[in-house]
Amino acid sequence: MPHPPDNSVRPHVVIIGGGFGGLQAAKGLRNAPVEVTLIDRRNFHLFQPLLYQVATGGLGPAEIAVPLRALFKYQRNIRVLNAEVVAIDPQQQRVHLDDDEAIPYDYLIVAAGASYHYFGHDEWAKHAPGLKTIEDAQEIRRRVLLALEHAERESDPQRQQAWLTFVIVGGGPTGVELAGALAELVHATVRGEFRRFDPAKARLLLLEGGPRLLPTYPPDLSANAHQSLRRLGVEVVTNALVNHVDAQGVQYTHQGESVWVEARTVLWAAGVRAAPLAEQLAQRTNAPTDKVGRLIVEPDLSLPGYPNLFVIGDLAHYAHQTGSPLPGVAPVALQQGSYVARVIRERLHGRQPRPFRYKDKGDAAVIGRKAAVIKIGRLHLTGFIAWLGWLFIHLLYLVGFENKLLVMIQWAWNYFTRNRRARLILYCYGTPPHAPESRIISSGEDARREQR
Amino acid sequence: MPHPPDNSVRPHVVIIGGGFGGLQAAKGLRNAPVEVTLIDRRNFHLFQPLLYQVATGGLGPAEIAVPLRALFKYQRNIRVLNAEVVAIDPQQQRVHLDDDEAIPYDYLIVAAGASYHYFGHDEWAKHAPGLKTIEDAQEIRRRVLLALEHAERESDPQRQQAWLTFVIVGGGPTGVELAGALAELVHATVRGEFRRFDPAKARLLLLEGGPRLLPTYPPDLSANAHQSLRRLGVEVVTNALVNHVDAQGVQYTHQGESVWVEARTVLWAAGVRAAPLAEQLAQRTNAPTDKVGRLIVEPDLSLPGYPNLFVIGDLAHYAHQTGSPLPGVAPVALQQGSYVARVIRERLHGRQPRPFRYKDKGDAAVIGRKAAVIKIGRLHLTGFIAWLGWLFIHLLYLVGFENKLLVMIQWAWNYFTRNRRARLILYCYGTPPHAPESRIISSGEDARREQR
Repeated sequence: MPHPPDNSVRPHVVIIGGGFGGLQAAKGLRNAPVEVTLIDRRNFHLFQPLLYQVATGGLGPAEIAVPLRALFKYQRNIRVLNAEVVAIDPQQQRVHLDDDEAIPYDYLIVAAGASYHYFGHDEWAKHAPGLKTIEDAQEIRRRVLLALEHAERESDPQRQQAWLTFVIVGGGPTGVELAGALAELVHATVRGEFRRFDPAKARLLLLEGGPRLLPTYPPDLSANAHQSLRRLGVEVVTNALVNHVDAQGVQYTHQGESVWVEARTVLWAAGVRAAPLAEQLAQRTNAPTDKVGRLIVEPDLSLPGYPNLFVIGDLAHYAHQTGSPLPGVAPVALQQGSYVARVIRERLHGRQPRPFRYKDKGDAAVIGRKAAVIKIGRLHLTGFIAWLGWLFIHLLYLVGFENKLLVMIQWAWNYFTRNRRARLILYCYGTPPHAPESRIISSGEDARREQR
Repeated sequence: MPHPPDNSVRPHVVIIGGGFGGLQAAKGLRNAPVEVTLIDRRNFHLFQPLLYQVATGGLGPAEIAVPLRALFKYQRNIRVLNAEVVAIDPQQQRVHLDDDEAIPYDYLIVAAGASYHYFGHDEWAKHAPGLKTIEDAQEIRRRVLLALEHAERESDPQRQQAWLTFVIVGGGPTGVELAGALAELVHATVRGEFRRFDPAKARLLLLEGGPRLLPTYPPDLSANAHQSLRRLGVEVVTNALVNHVDAQGVQYTHQGESVWVEARTVLWAAGVRAAPLAEQLAQRTNAPTDKVGRLIVEPDLSLPGYPNLFVIGDLAHYAHQTGSPLPGVAPVALQQGSYVARVIRERLHGRQPRPFRYKDKGDAAVIGRKAAVIKIGRLHLTGFIAWLGWLFIHLLYLVGFENKLLVMIQWAWNYFTRNRRARLILYCYGTPPHAPESRIISSGEDARREQR
């Protein structure tokens, strides 16, 4: 229900999620005659494409996150709420929060993002953390660094090798970037820091279910990424279907054979699933969903029958442009956020904007500290020149000037020294370091005991 | 038992703790004909004097911590072990680790540091975190920032004020620095970021048990610190004896009267107690301890009857110089670390060095972003000039060049913008944000329910 411009009672726009999509929508409403409430359960915007840098000790969390309140300090028509949305009521036009507060809306933008899914094996999650939040990244960092520490203390060669084996499941951009950075960390950065093992012995394995890495990229770039990773010492196995993960390692099927890899560190960069809110919303609006739980949206990104309820970013399945859904990447979310803000502004003037169209400006994935692959239209770049391009794009998009400067300094430093400064093993507050509950070894030991 | 120089079997020096004292001892043995094992349960050296900056979002953890392995990468006679010491056997000359490994030593340097104590009320700890570890600092940051978020969501004025009341117990350097930084954060940094309350309404209370702040400083500097804090909006109460802390607030006695302060955030910067290892060591060596559990050491920092077992830093009670024990500050630990390394080097040549003497180079405490107090001999500095001096001293002592540069950039930035970039509310891995177990409010609610 479009509202006419009215200065006494301004329409209320509620945005759920302060990721790329939600943030861009909020910014797009800066000068619009509306009141905006941005709800996020975190108090910061996260630059997710660089999470793998936190996971491998190259950057600290604060370098890739900006407090939402700081971002909107000077935008007076917006209110930031640090809260969890427990339900959306599209009939009553209300959003219900965890403290029983109900927030009425005139327009709702749902940008709640995605999380990992484990092909129906949620029990794998504790053995193979994904990489969606800062906590995930810190947990991966902790496991990787602790594995090296355990290797230094282990005298049995077989057990030592299990600590020195790192498996990454999933050969999309996240898996590729994580594998590259991890190879730098365990082969180069820590060289000379241990006395009982040679980091060159560390084994890195990247498992991809499909026939090539980076399936959404052109084949020549996939091949280049494959080569670059091999040069960094990463074993890449394509057509590898994971069928078991536990504290001892990973089992996968490759060319009809079952392979078992003894590994104490397994990282997950495979399947993605829409946030749980999507399922609930689908039920209440009868909106169709696809098989990963994304809501199939109208050409203007609204839900069928609910013209004032928009779904954007990783939560939206938008296939009106090319017939296949747009990928869950930052540029799509950013453009959809801008578009929805424009739709609301136009509607306030009684106009109906044209359908959303994604302008594909290209894709980029980095591999280690010297190589990347970039696709910009028909232009395909690889190697160092692509790496420079990638660096430039990411710095351009990093929110907040200060962060850009700090990230740049740290990258320059890392580049020249191969140092990774942020290599801290942190624990939960209240959990003493090396207490049984805070050591990976214990879960491994437990599993082994159970197997006996 | 001194060892003669012998290149075939070099004496083994074990150092427990990679804080200021242990680090300095390890560095002092760089070119000595010994093998060194440095054991720490953390994988990094922490620049503790700046922890309060992490607690208030001014710096990220990685800016004040350096991986121990990176520090000793090029010192080939040292081995770093990331492990917990569970026992010391001074008769057999062995150190026992958490994985049942026993490490024999020829010389042992115990530099395990101190933790907070709650005047016999350990149940206060969960309501009033101390500030010794990065996890402590992140927990304080989380509580402070969540309190502001709760205030924004609270409609009841009394409950809102409880969220906006912050109490710091203890007026030593840590309490003073924390109070100053917290005042900057809640009164200045977040100004304009909330819509339902005015940050000027936030109340900060610093409770000191003695008659003046900074009891180890000269009285004129105490008075100056008191004034500077008042200018920042901190209420300072001296002669305030805390007798109860819970999730609802703090009760203290002042001038014979009992005062109750409703506060959802209480921070602890009061009593300090030697690490638990000290008690065990005292029993096994019959070494005397003082009332906070520190080991009373000989003039050469060894334990009576154990000339090859040294105790340094916060764990040591050294009163041979002035009659009263040296304070538990970084310069004492640093000088003791260097001294013990020299003692070991000299003994290897059959010489016996002179007793340890502390060279007091001064004290400094900072109050907010424009004031500090410094004592260097008879010279007392206050205000902005002292702040510059403090900045210079701390940057000088920060281990690792890169950190210095980054910290400097962030401070310059903070100084000009009053921004505090690292304002992230983080949770334990596996604990969803806003889940009951991760919200302070729940403990408050529980306590209130119990009281009914």
